Amino acid sequence: MQKVHAYLKKEYPRFLEELKEYVSLSGVSARGDKQEMRKCAEWLLAHCRALELNATLYQTDGNPVLVATTKNNTAKKPHYIVYGHYDVQPPEPLELWKSPPFTPTVRGGKLFARGASDNKGQHFAHLKAVEAYIKTCTPLPCDITFVIEGEEEVGSSNLSLFLQKNKKMLAADGVVISDTNMPSLKTPAITYALRGIAALEVTLRGSDRDVHSGSYGGSIENPAFALAHLLATLRNKKTGKILVRGFYDGVCVLTAKERKAMHEGGAEDAERYRAFLKVPCLFGEKGFSHIEHTTIRPTMEINGLTSGYQGIGSKTIVPSCASAKITMRLVPHQEPQRVITAVKKHLMAHCPKSVTMEIKSGHGAEPYLFEPNSGEVRAAERAIKRVFGAPPRFIREGGSIPVVTDFKKILGVHSLLIGLALPDDNAHSPNEKFELANFKRGMVLSAELWKELVL
Amino acid sequence: MQKVHAYLKKEYPRFLEELKEYVSLSGVSARGDKQEMRKCAEWLLAHCRALELNATLYQTDGNPVLVATTKNNTAKKPHYIVYGHYDVQPPEPLELWKSPPFTPTVRGGKLFARGASDNKGQHFAHLKAVEAYIKTCTPLPCDITFVIEGEEEVGSSNLSLFLQKNKKMLAADGVVISDTNMPSLKTPAITYALRGIAALEVTLRGSDRDVHSGSYGGSIENPAFALAHLLATLRNKKTGKILVRGFYDGVCVLTAKERKAMHEGGAEDAERYRAFLKVPCLFGEKGFSHIEHTTIRPTMEINGLTSGYQGIGSKTIVPSCASAKITMRLVPHQEPQRVITAVKKHLMAHCPKSVTMEIKSGHGAEPYLFEPNSGEVRAAERAIKRVFGAPPRFIREGGSIPVVTDFKKILGVHSLLIGLALPDDNAHSPNEKFELANFKRGMVLSAELWKELVL
Repeated sequence: MQKVHAYLKKEYPRFLEELKEYVSLSGVSARGDKQEMRKCAEWLLAHCRALELNATLYQTDGNPVLVATTKNNTAKKPHYIVYGHYDVQPPEPLELWKSPPFTPTVRGGKLFARGASDNKGQHFAHLKAVEAYIKTCTPLPCDITFVIEGEEEVGSSNLSLFLQKNKKMLAADGVVISDTNMPSLKTPAITYALRGIAALEVTLRGSDRDVHSGSYGGSIENPAFALAHLLATLRNKKTGKILVRGFYDGVCVLTAKERKAMHEGGAEDAERYRAFLKVPCLFGEKGFSHIEHTTIRPTMEINGLTSGYQGIGSKTIVPSCASAKITMRLVPHQEPQRVITAVKKHLMAHCPKSVTMEIKSGHGAEPYLFEPNSGEVRAAERAIKRVFGAPPRFIREGGSIPVVTDFKKILGVHSLLIGLALPDDNAHSPNEKFELANFKRGMVLSAELWKELVL
Repeated sequence: MQKVHAYLKKEYPRFLEELKEYVSLSGVSARGDKQEMRKCAEWLLAHCRALELNATLYQTDGNPVLVATTKNNTAKKPHYIVYGHYDVQPPEPLELWKSPPFTPTVRGGKLFARGASDNKGQHFAHLKAVEAYIKTCTPLPCDITFVIEGEEEVGSSNLSLFLQKNKKMLAADGVVISDTNMPSLKTPAITYALRGIAALEVTLRGSDRDVHSGSYGGSIENPAFALAHLLATLRNKKTGKILVRGFYDGVCVLTAKERKAMHEGGAEDAERYRAFLKVPCLFGEKGFSHIEHTTIRPTMEINGLTSGYQGIGSKTIVPSCASAKITMRLVPHQEPQRVITAVKKHLMAHCPKSVTMEIKSGHGAEPYLFEPNSGEVRAAERAIKRVFGAPPRFIREGGSIPVVTDFKKILGVHSLLIGLALPDDNAHSPNEKFELANFKRGMVLSAELWKELVL
């Protein structure tokens, strides 16, 4: 193992340059540009092959999935999958970036670029740990297969079919994923619950064209106004409680003990949290803390609103249509499809007759929860403690990793969620970054983990 | 006069080509591009000079005002102003135009282009009538001064100072404006009331950047949701009645007789009107017809909504801000500034503490109303009857021409509103058009009008 650690230390400057090259390839899956995605996947393919991994791009109906494995048929070893995604969130609004999103820039020990922490930097740390084993001719304690997909940010809709088709090849003892947060640089974590997600887009239409607000205003419904009224029916404006019948069905209630544990040792103070987000005050359902609002409670968010004229100055029209993009974060045991059906029903019941409505359902992913007492978790705990000098906190996370439930359902294995990102890494926001300290520790942690997993 | 009419007939093909050239110059004042505006104004200047008018561009803090006059100091004649505007509405959404907005195209006797009827085609008809007098050496019965401005679509905010500064030069007996509608090709009209306008833009801000809806959603206010709730407080969603305290103060109540007259002879049937606008049903305050909703009742419209991600697919964020562009159409005797103050007060009272609010006031214009029994109106009535073969209807119009109240206040003169546009001309919408039949008749009407006005 000394050789592995020495290699990781010595080669770090090159690893950083490689990561910079990787994040400079855009790969915004939401744009639907297949060429842009393929370029990124092919870079990764070439990189894995250079590490002597057995690497292939699998075409799907969407973007290709990279599979790169150390597996050979000479010896029977435990087999783990490392999951990650090479696609990233859209970088807009561009004007808020201090350095361009796809021009990776190191400032103060942090690598700034879209995808730096979500998720390229995190799975790249695992790739480099495996490289260290290979290049130092140190035998890996287990077989490792990297499954790096290109559609996580748009719901991983083609990955589940891919897993089904390749069940045999991917038969494994577990999955390791670094795509979550740790509370701070000093506090590592293992995530044992994720929120699910359900997306939809609602469009209201009035006249078939924008019309003069002087000549026609007052005699026909204004779709933007109708949308405001419709959206306002979804939520209690003071508490944020969702008013859709059945929305909270199945939401699991935590014991007082579990809720207390969520707020101990390292849990962020509300005022610091508020100041970090620069909001006038925190918000949310009564009786729950901000930590609970973002983990054990489901939410509904408007991600975007569009209607009429949005340029400089004014345009005196009654717009022909107005639309809202909505996503809901779900908690155990809410079912995405049932929630979408309930929201659709609510919208249909509340939509006025003066407009027509179109609802498009987007991606959905089930929430995830597992008992944090498995052998894998204990192994990760030991490795983390050694590398970070502190035991991991067991946390629930507000985000969603759709594929985690697929791994359970299709391959029958749990996912070990060991996040290397920080809450202020600006995932999905301008100025996304990755702490280089975590890039380094992530590689060492990965190297240690494989050893611990087979004990 | 025979020579004038013969000239208008003979030269019509050239006039149409000239109008096409004029509308091919964009001139979207809302864009704030001074060069684009100046190019249009200079074309007009050169055109007027070629007609031997004494023409000048007057610089303002905004776009230049063209003044072109037949006036000379040799003979004392009555003096009329023809007002128009060379600026146009933004052409977006471009994809809905059958031919590009600034590539004038004649189809079925209609000229399609942004600005064709609002307002270039209409004031160009007057210009061509005056040309016919000049070029046939027919003495004009009165002096005529064209005042063509470049900021009507953004509230004419610099014109009032211009009128004040040039009161002496512009001393006149009346103003003639063709910037309104006639009910149909067979039904000419004189407009005796206009709605006023008041504009504002409200922006709500939460976090200083868009944040990950998984990591933070549920713990902070979503500005788009807060905006929906806030906008929903402004209006009764069923009736459209505005719920701002004091909004309806001063709104004049019409007599049953006047209301009845509004619905007689040529008033458009509600079902035909609905079908023309292609809306599922009409909308508006109870107890009023669609004709009343668009003329004698004030309204509030959302002209545009913006928040978060609006591209393809989804972006799972809590947006940092959300904004709405709002304009209100006002009726006699509402005062724009008082209405804006009332709405601001309402928004401040209803804005939640979880977001910060910014309100920008835009342009305002008072509503206009005059007694339709003056000598000028009778003169216009005679000219219209002769040219259109039908008497004009006296109508109220829902749109606003901010300068009309300025002409009254500053120059002390009334404006004669003789519209040549049709309700289906798509002013402010894609596929704006001008009926060439009305271009032709407009020129003849203008030629006849000067004769009648001095009788």
